[in-house]
Amino acid sequence: MHIPSALFFDVFGTLVNWRSSIAREARTILDPLGYKLDWLAFADAWRGEYQPAMEEIRSGRQAFCKLDVLHRRNLEKILPRFKISELSDDALANLNRAWHRLDAWPDSAAGLAQLKRKCLLAPVSNGNISLMVDLARRNDFPWDAILGSEVAGDFKPKPRVYLAACEAFDLAPGDCMMVAAHSNDLAHAAKCGLRTVHIARPNEHGPGRGETAPTVPVDVAAADLNDLAEKLTA
Amino acid sequence: MHIPSALFFDVFGTLVNWRSSIAREARTILDPLGYKLDWLAFADAWRGEYQPAMEEIRSGRQAFCKLDVLHRRNLEKILPRFKISELSDDALANLNRAWHRLDAWPDSAAGLAQLKRKCLLAPVSNGNISLMVDLARRNDFPWDAILGSEVAGDFKPKPRVYLAACEAFDLAPGDCMMVAAHSNDLAHAAKCGLRTVHIARPNEHGPGRGETAPTVPVDVAAADLNDLAEKLTA
Repeated sequence: MHIPSALFFDVFGTLVNWRSSIAREARTILDPLGYKLDWLAFADAWRGEYQPAMEEIRSGRQAFCKLDVLHRRNLEKILPRFKISELSDDALANLNRAWHRLDAWPDSAAGLAQLKRKCLLAPVSNGNISLMVDLARRNDFPWDAILGSEVAGDFKPKPRVYLAACEAFDLAPGDCMMVAAHSNDLAHAAKCGLRTVHIARPNEHGPGRGETAPTVPVDVAAADLNDLAEKLTA
Repeated sequence: MHIPSALFFDVFGTLVNWRSSIAREARTILDPLGYKLDWLAFADAWRGEYQPAMEEIRSGRQAFCKLDVLHRRNLEKILPRFKISELSDDALANLNRAWHRLDAWPDSAAGLAQLKRKCLLAPVSNGNISLMVDLARRNDFPWDAILGSEVAGDFKPKPRVYLAACEAFDLAPGDCMMVAAHSNDLAHAAKCGLRTVHIARPNEHGPGRGETAPTVPVDVAAADLNDLAEKLTA
């Protein structure tokens, strides 16, 4: 396996378990206020608004803004569905910051530490810089730089996001590898000339509801980040 | 001392000794080609073109480009003065990458490691992302993110560069501190509302030719980064 100069990582779902983390954070904030919900359903509903909100920007109908801003809009959209109202500004802001407090999958930090010995590492996520920094601090992600949507001014899977990351590191796309648990992300990265790694996250959306294998051609399919580290350094 | 949420660092001169490093790199590349120069004078001449080149962009006369591109233009400008000609493209590219191989002052890495326990850390330098990443790898600078000119699309001391760094971390300028060995940098950061730290680098431009103390009002004046870490955590 020819080792790439840089590895770019999707984060939500690939490195962190957003679903159980958001459910836990929502419960921590809302349960003491007297709300009893299906917390995982709340997480799914919030995440459900993710792609439609970014599509407004990818399409050019709205100007670029940080994902934190979209998360807040999406939150206010779903609250009525769960009959939640009259939250204070502080509670809303705290709830929105739940996305800065996501926990990593068990293999993420150790795998990244191994991979850092061989390659430059950066998130190429749709999350904003401050969100990525908070997740890195919480989970020991040893990034060389924070790249992705905020540096590119657009959201994946627009080509600009992948290409801006390569350019920031002065690398040709063929010297870079995109790592994700989502075949759609990898298909678009490959179209831009990047090499691709699929990581199996079979339970991302709940037990048995995640990609166990890629549905598109990839350069490497790995069970997790430790497996990827072994495959790249073998 | 009220500890800021984030510390932003100037890099050339403040964290790394560009002058002796560039002299060494130039000698390593050019001496075997038969050139005998005053290597420190060569470093000074190259650095002497730094501010004028950026001023073309700050003024709006030229579009923004990475500092690597300006360094290359400046290099080609000074070579005739030292009677250097007919370097291969590879030698020119290698020489230009000398700026990616600068060595830190002895206190930089240890001071940053201490400060990282208390604050978010980012370079807010005029260097581009890949240059900052290479210096960080070489010198163990534990950045949370790479901010500065390439993220802002302009060069210090334009206000946009300081303000873009604060915005990337979702912080008010008053929660951020700019750390530099140059009073001019700090004066402009202060105008944007950031707090300021002066680091003494009395030998930046050669023995006795550097700022031993700030010439403008600052919040903290420190002897080096270890001294700053002590002052901020006292």
